[in-house]
Amino acid sequence: MSEQHTTNEAAQTLDGWYALHDFRTIDWTAWKLLTSDERQAILHEFTGLLEKWKTAEHNQAGSQTIYSIVGQKADIMLMILRPTMEELGEIELEFNKSRLAEFTIPAYSYVSVVELSNYLAGGGDGGDPYENPHVRARLYPELPSSQYVCFYPMDKRRSGNDNWYMLSMDERKSLMRSHGLIGRSYAGKVKQIITGSVGFDDYEWGVTLFSDDVLQFKKLVYEMRFDEVSARYGEFGSFFVGNRLANEQLASYFHV
Amino acid sequence: MSEQHTTNEAAQTLDGWYALHDFRTIDWTAWKLLTSDERQAILHEFTGLLEKWKTAEHNQAGSQTIYSIVGQKADIMLMILRPTMEELGEIELEFNKSRLAEFTIPAYSYVSVVELSNYLAGGGDGGDPYENPHVRARLYPELPSSQYVCFYPMDKRRSGNDNWYMLSMDERKSLMRSHGLIGRSYAGKVKQIITGSVGFDDYEWGVTLFSDDVLQFKKLVYEMRFDEVSARYGEFGSFFVGNRLANEQLASYFHV
Amino acid sequence: MSEQHTTNEAAQTLDGWYALHDFRTIDWTAWKLLTSDERQAILHEFTGLLEKWKTAEHNQAGSQTIYSIVGQKADIMLMILRPTMEELGEIELEFNKSRLAEFTIPAYSYVSVVELSNYLAGGGDGGDPYENPHVRARLYPELPSSQYVCFYPMDKRRSGNDNWYMLSMDERKSLMRSHGLIGRSYAGKVKQIITGSVGFDDYEWGVTLFSDDVLQFKKLVYEMRFDEVSARYGEFGSFFVGNRLANEQLASYFHV
Amino acid sequence: MSEQHTTNEAAQTLDGWYALHDFRTIDWTAWKLLTSDERQAILHEFTGLLEKWKTAEHNQAGSQTIYSIVGQKADIMLMILRPTMEELGEIELEFNKSRLAEFTIPAYSYVSVVELSNYLAGGGDGGDPYENPHVRARLYPELPSSQYVCFYPMDKRRSGNDNWYMLSMDERKSLMRSHGLIGRSYAGKVKQIITGSVGFDDYEWGVTLFSDDVLQFKKLVYEMRFDEVSARYGEFGSFFVGNRLANEQLASYFHV
Amino acid sequence: MSEQHTTNEAAQTLDGWYALHDFRTIDWTAWKLLTSDERQAILHEFTGLLEKWKTAEHNQAGSQTIYSIVGQKADIMLMILRPTMEELGEIELEFNKSRLAEFTIPAYSYVSVVELSNYLAGGGDGGDPYENPHVRARLYPELPSSQYVCFYPMDKRRSGNDNWYMLSMDERKSLMRSHGLIGRSYAGKVKQIITGSVGFDDYEWGVTLFSDDVLQFKKLVYEMRFDEVSARYGEFGSFFVGNRLANEQLASYFHV
Repeated sequence: MSEQHTTNEAAQTLDGWYALHDFRTIDWTAWKLLTSDERQAILHEFTGLLEKWKTAEHNQAGSQTIYSIVGQKADIMLMILRPTMEELGEIELEFNKSRLAEFTIPAYSYVSVVELSNYLAGGGDGGDPYENPHVRARLYPELPSSQYVCFYPMDKRRSGNDNWYMLSMDERKSLMRSHGLIGRSYAGKVKQIITGSVGFDDYEWGVTLFSDDVLQFKKLVYEMRFDEVSARYGEFGSFFVGNRLANEQLASYFHV
Repeated sequence: MSEQHTTNEAAQTLDGWYALHDFRTIDWTAWKLLTSDERQAILHEFTGLLEKWKTAEHNQAGSQTIYSIVGQKADIMLMILRPTMEELGEIELEFNKSRLAEFTIPAYSYVSVVELSNYLAGGGDGGDPYENPHVRARLYPELPSSQYVCFYPMDKRRSGNDNWYMLSMDERKSLMRSHGLIGRSYAGKVKQIITGSVGFDDYEWGVTLFSDDVLQFKKLVYEMRFDEVSARYGEFGSFFVGNRLANEQLASYFHV
Repeated sequence: MSEQHTTNEAAQTLDGWYALHDFRTIDWTAWKLLTSDERQAILHEFTGLLEKWKTAEHNQAGSQTIYSIVGQKADIMLMILRPTMEELGEIELEFNKSRLAEFTIPAYSYVSVVELSNYLAGGGDGGDPYENPHVRARLYPELPSSQYVCFYPMDKRRSGNDNWYMLSMDERKSLMRSHGLIGRSYAGKVKQIITGSVGFDDYEWGVTLFSDDVLQFKKLVYEMRFDEVSARYGEFGSFFVGNRLANEQLASYFHV
Repeated sequence: MSEQHTTNEAAQTLDGWYALHDFRTIDWTAWKLLTSDERQAILHEFTGLLEKWKTAEHNQAGSQTIYSIVGQKADIMLMILRPTMEELGEIELEFNKSRLAEFTIPAYSYVSVVELSNYLAGGGDGGDPYENPHVRARLYPELPSSQYVCFYPMDKRRSGNDNWYMLSMDERKSLMRSHGLIGRSYAGKVKQIITGSVGFDDYEWGVTLFSDDVLQFKKLVYEMRFDEVSARYGEFGSFFVGNRLANEQLASYFHV
Repeated sequence: MSEQHTTNEAAQTLDGWYALHDFRTIDWTAWKLLTSDERQAILHEFTGLLEKWKTAEHNQAGSQTIYSIVGQKADIMLMILRPTMEELGEIELEFNKSRLAEFTIPAYSYVSVVELSNYLAGGGDGGDPYENPHVRARLYPELPSSQYVCFYPMDKRRSGNDNWYMLSMDERKSLMRSHGLIGRSYAGKVKQIITGSVGFDDYEWGVTLFSDDVLQFKKLVYEMRFDEVSARYGEFGSFFVGNRLANEQLASYFHV
């Protein structure tokens, strides 16, 4: 069975901004021990950081957003996009040194890079895709202000007869095409950012979904699960769902 | 083998109230260090929260209940149903900021939404099911005051030849029909609330069972395990079993 | 393969007392910080609890025992049998509120109910088995004072071709019969209490073995592993082994 | 496939001393907070214990050794052999009550018994093997003073077509014979102690290797992995590797 | 199927320096509680250790490097190469006793030895490979000052029909040959150090990649995943990615 050695054509990717999903749990007991003035000062420092990080957004050099996570897996998620891995490290370090970080406990994180694969690529016009404005908008996206977020990491399965990486490029392309059709049927309802993490984190991809209707996450992921790409080849990590925590809601969120 | 790409018809769901199962362990050592007055004040604050949450029940805008869990997995479980994901987040935040929360340690949680699938749906009368009182009673249920609760999350298996999501809708419907018959044979003995969590939490469903005879949980789950739907396709998470902790029992439960 | 939907005849069980296995690790550092008088008072309170729990035994309304566990998984195991799930919860709560509990850390627990299955049942005499003294002695057992204990939880496998729950009742009966013969060959050497935990805890059964020769645990479990029921269908959790900690040994065990 | 029920001939074992492998992490921060005198006193108490335990060795009633483990899994490993499970429990308790234990954190442990299986047994001379000096030397071994140790627990696989326990005794014997040949080719370079843990701990065996050339561990385990017994049937737990920590090195090891 | 017992020819390895990958999380909260002078003194002690360890590099008797890890898995990684396992233990002990270690929490570690396998070996000239300067440069490498690092442990799969260790030497050689071609196509872009850990740690190999373009890690690992060696036979542990933390950056990294 293994006498004929196979190297399948690897998928090609376009890679955009690096992404850090940083989930934290709040230590409310310690937070409440502070005086109101101390809490105010700490939040002031934190909103200062957010302001500073926002200048990247103004310069089209990154984007970030905060959501509050429902359930015990985490309390808040910071999602940060930046042009380099160093910047992700710097922002993480900056937050870790902040006073607010003293009142958070690391819960989960994910390191990846915004990715477009060539499975769904059209014929192309022969030009440099990195100069294509349509492509650029997807590789270097401004994160939306949707009401809800859903994040989960995933692998393509390599198990017995269900081995994605042993399929030919044509088989994978055909499978991804109908998979993509499901995704596209949610256009306008769910915005999806795929980030690749092979070599960066424990799963092969991160999926971040944004919507103003939280039920669409369930409908989209469930519908896809009946598609062969997920049904036979999808392996999923933990799912996180959250409500938007806009900057102007931070004061009330942290008010005790 | 995978040349013929398959997208199976996805099951359709009706979705009701969002659900948070929140399991906590009590830090008895810290609790005992308090004065009796402090403990009383903390419980007073907590029962105030419970009262406030109960107004949702009076307005048919949610339901909640508390059970004490047997064994070390947790001490108490709060189960909360609400019309929106934001309300779940708010209640969780409200509890986390409460003084009682300082004496609890997160043990497990589950985020889902009350769900009815179309596998078992009758012909339907063509009307909007969300207006059907029978359906509404199941999508927006008042949680019962049963003596016992059982909770567990579960997946449908996608493994080799045992891949639920590669079955046709007809196969799945036929399998679910006899599975449902077992469930129905426990009518009057066990009340079952199925909540869907695809896209929300790590398993695909949560199952919450209520009964006044704890042995019926074992009988029901065991009998179902011999049915092909569970035998070949069920993957189960942790099981939690508990005794009802009515509001009037809280004082004695927390008395030290 | 799945066109013919199968619901196999479920095994019937007789169910006796509810069981809580409660494993704890001692916080020796904190324990040593106490004065000798404090330690004495705490042990006095604890032996008072044991005395109280013992009245259940005198009333044939339960049984309990304590073992010290070898290795780091736990230091002590309390095993408690009671007629209702509420009583298990109450005893757990009582212990958690005790002063000794402040010096223990939860290590593992198991919730189940003493169970006899119909696989090995003889023809029966048509009478109510719950009135049969032989059966009652097994459903409501007084825990023995054996020198050693072994506890482990287990499942019957449902994996590919090795799916216990897809076997017919006849196949399962035949398999269990020879399995039972091995067990019976250890009669007089090992006392075995099977507790069912479907719907109550994460595995389907707990197995508690008692013996005055610790090597018999290894011989019994190893011999059974070559039997098809275990070889093909057994999935095992953690194994705990311990030495008896009789009430009169508690003072010396806790002496520092 | 399962119509013909199979009970394979179980392997017979000779069982010697009980074994506790006890891995601990040092809390260096707390250790450094002590005065030099306190540290000296604590080490004095500990070396007193070691002296006491050594009398067992002089009486051929046990053996023990200490290694420092490389990497974060643990800092030190105590390996203790004794004629009874009670003695293991007593030594563990004695150490847990010692002052040094206050500065250690449990990292891993393993409970087993020195074991010889009949797979490799020669014809035998009909005498009681427990009286055979050759056998006795292996069942009741004095632990060597080798420079390096390697410990790992392992199972024989029971998965689909790779099910060790469904093989006939003849198949297993034949497989073990060539497996044993590899082991024997390392004679003089690696000393191997097999301990059985079925019914005692989470894997079926512990393997403890001793050598004065740490690379021989890698060569031996790697070579065996190409042998069918390991390739198809071996399931391995964590591997621990360490440098000898002779009693006379303790002072310098703990010097801060 | 198992009647014909197989012992496949084991791969031969050349083994160089022992390797310790030591991942730590910084306790920033405690670090910030120090005075600036204390922090300075602690960093001074730590850079003293680094200087001392560097003399090994000058003597061609080892190498080491530090990277800051992105995401919550760790904050920093020390990678240390030394001629003996004792030296690794000593360096680990030295760091554990240092004051900086009081402000770090162990996050992950890996123990292995630099390894070259004979799969890719050319004909050889019959000389002692350990005297070949080309081989020596790879067995005893000076770690590069690349901008980025990627580390992950891995196994070769032994599962059903995908069992690497049941393949003949010829099959493995042929598979590794084309696998190696992918690696070589990244020459100049990614430097790869393979360390063997059979018998030393939980996976069979560690892979450490260095590059000045972090995206090359993703491209390399992803491209390899479509190659049969990874697609059918690779099992991967956690992936860690980091930015170089040169000695001259330490002050600013730890500045708060």
